[in-house]
Amino acid sequence: MNQISRRPIRLYDVTLENGSTLSPFVWRIRYALAHKGLETELEPVAFTQIRQILGGQYEQVPIIEDNGQVIQDSWAIAQYLDRTYADAPPLFRTYGEYTAARFFDRWMFRDVIPHMYHCYVLDNYNQARPEDREYLRESRQRSFLGGRTLEEVVKGREKRLPLVRDSLQPLRVALAESPWLGGLRPNYVDFIGLGLFLWAAAINTLPPLEKNDSLFDWLNRGFDLYGGLGRDERLHPLAPGVPTSRPPEHEQRLTA
Amino acid sequence: MNQISRRPIRLYDVTLENGSTLSPFVWRIRYALAHKGLETELEPVAFTQIRQILGGQYEQVPIIEDNGQVIQDSWAIAQYLDRTYADAPPLFRTYGEYTAARFFDRWMFRDVIPHMYHCYVLDNYNQARPEDREYLRESRQRSFLGGRTLEEVVKGREKRLPLVRDSLQPLRVALAESPWLGGLRPNYVDFIGLGLFLWAAAINTLPPLEKNDSLFDWLNRGFDLYGGLGRDERLHPLAPGVPTSRPPEHEQRLTA
Repeated sequence: MNQISRRPIRLYDVTLENGSTLSPFVWRIRYALAHKGLETELEPVAFTQIRQILGGQYEQVPIIEDNGQVIQDSWAIAQYLDRTYADAPPLFRTYGEYTAARFFDRWMFRDVIPHMYHCYVLDNYNQARPEDREYLRESRQRSFLGGRTLEEVVKGREKRLPLVRDSLQPLRVALAESPWLGGLRPNYVDFIGLGLFLWAAAINTLPPLEKNDSLFDWLNRGFDLYGGLGRDERLHPLAPGVPTSRPPEHEQRLTA
Repeated sequence: MNQISRRPIRLYDVTLENGSTLSPFVWRIRYALAHKGLETELEPVAFTQIRQILGGQYEQVPIIEDNGQVIQDSWAIAQYLDRTYADAPPLFRTYGEYTAARFFDRWMFRDVIPHMYHCYVLDNYNQARPEDREYLRESRQRSFLGGRTLEEVVKGREKRLPLVRDSLQPLRVALAESPWLGGLRPNYVDFIGLGLFLWAAAINTLPPLEKNDSLFDWLNRGFDLYGGLGRDERLHPLAPGVPTSRPPEHEQRLTA
């Protein structure tokens, strides 16, 4: 495959103060690039510095640079990767899988993320790069939070965790029968879902899940993919006593 | 294809008093059989008579009989059809599409159907076969409705229609970019979605949608499929002034 001789693909990544990837959209592209076996070079950037790179025409990550081409927007990048690296494993095996991914994304942003966001928006602020914090506070309070402060929004979040867990029920049902959302092998729908949980793992100081959640079977296999892409030391637990940064003990024993 | 010489597949169908198919699960199998080009013989049955057919071992439709085999449960039937008639157009092109269909089904039953059900449960009762009515009232009030009467549940339903419409938003977003939920061609996810609306069209006396709903583009193409399978004279409008039983006027002009 001719991509092996190419230069690595540069992926611009808005990082937290500890250097970890934040955005669920960047996480899905990190998985997409790894799934296709493409060498990647992460280029960290502060949220408030996106306007200072690449001629100032972009406002959001992910952005990739591949062989002189710049592509922005996770959907555009995913489609570019399948088109350009058609010999590598597909992100979407059929256009039906693409449409299903679109639907899944809309479901997630409508039914799951609002619950999580209202638990973690202050955690996100506290762990952002110092130069991003005031912008984050001001823009979030003005746009998504209807004038409420970050502190007001997260108040009582412990009591709202059951809403988060309940919102994930359709995901549990789909995964009760298939090893991956993509079927027998992961596809981009898995990367969208894993990206959601990795975003939560990057920032949360109150784990969203319970230890015995059936989602952990899929999450653990997902975090182990591609050399343990989701096993970053800087990630926080998704359930009390369940570290995200390493596989569960029985898996470690099997490997040992 | 060897299925052409076979006997028609018999599909047991719980019908309303006017003879129309009710169940969203039967609707999806009617579409599945038509999509695969399989000749079908509908066998109407009252809900309270299911126990009197096929040796009394079944409680729900759809049930098919194909060449001496009896298969119950819409998922089992869909998988049987793809396996047995593998040369005919697939319901699921990949296992990823199957998993996406499972997810879509759970989403629909969780986020959409409860809103519709609480608007239409009395309509369903009123249009059921006379021999099914008392069973329907008693079992529904006891199980799904927590002891409330059908009349209590539907009270004020006009004010709740915006909830129904809003719940469909992820479907509109997915269909803004793809002609079908299955991508460039319909797959079983489309049949699940069309089955939901045909169930609502079979019983509603208060249309759920507004006339300019963008979903009508997909609904009209879906109802026209396979010789107009969804263009049954007995179906009610899904929006005021939009008959389900015939294509919109501009389509009729094109055909004339």
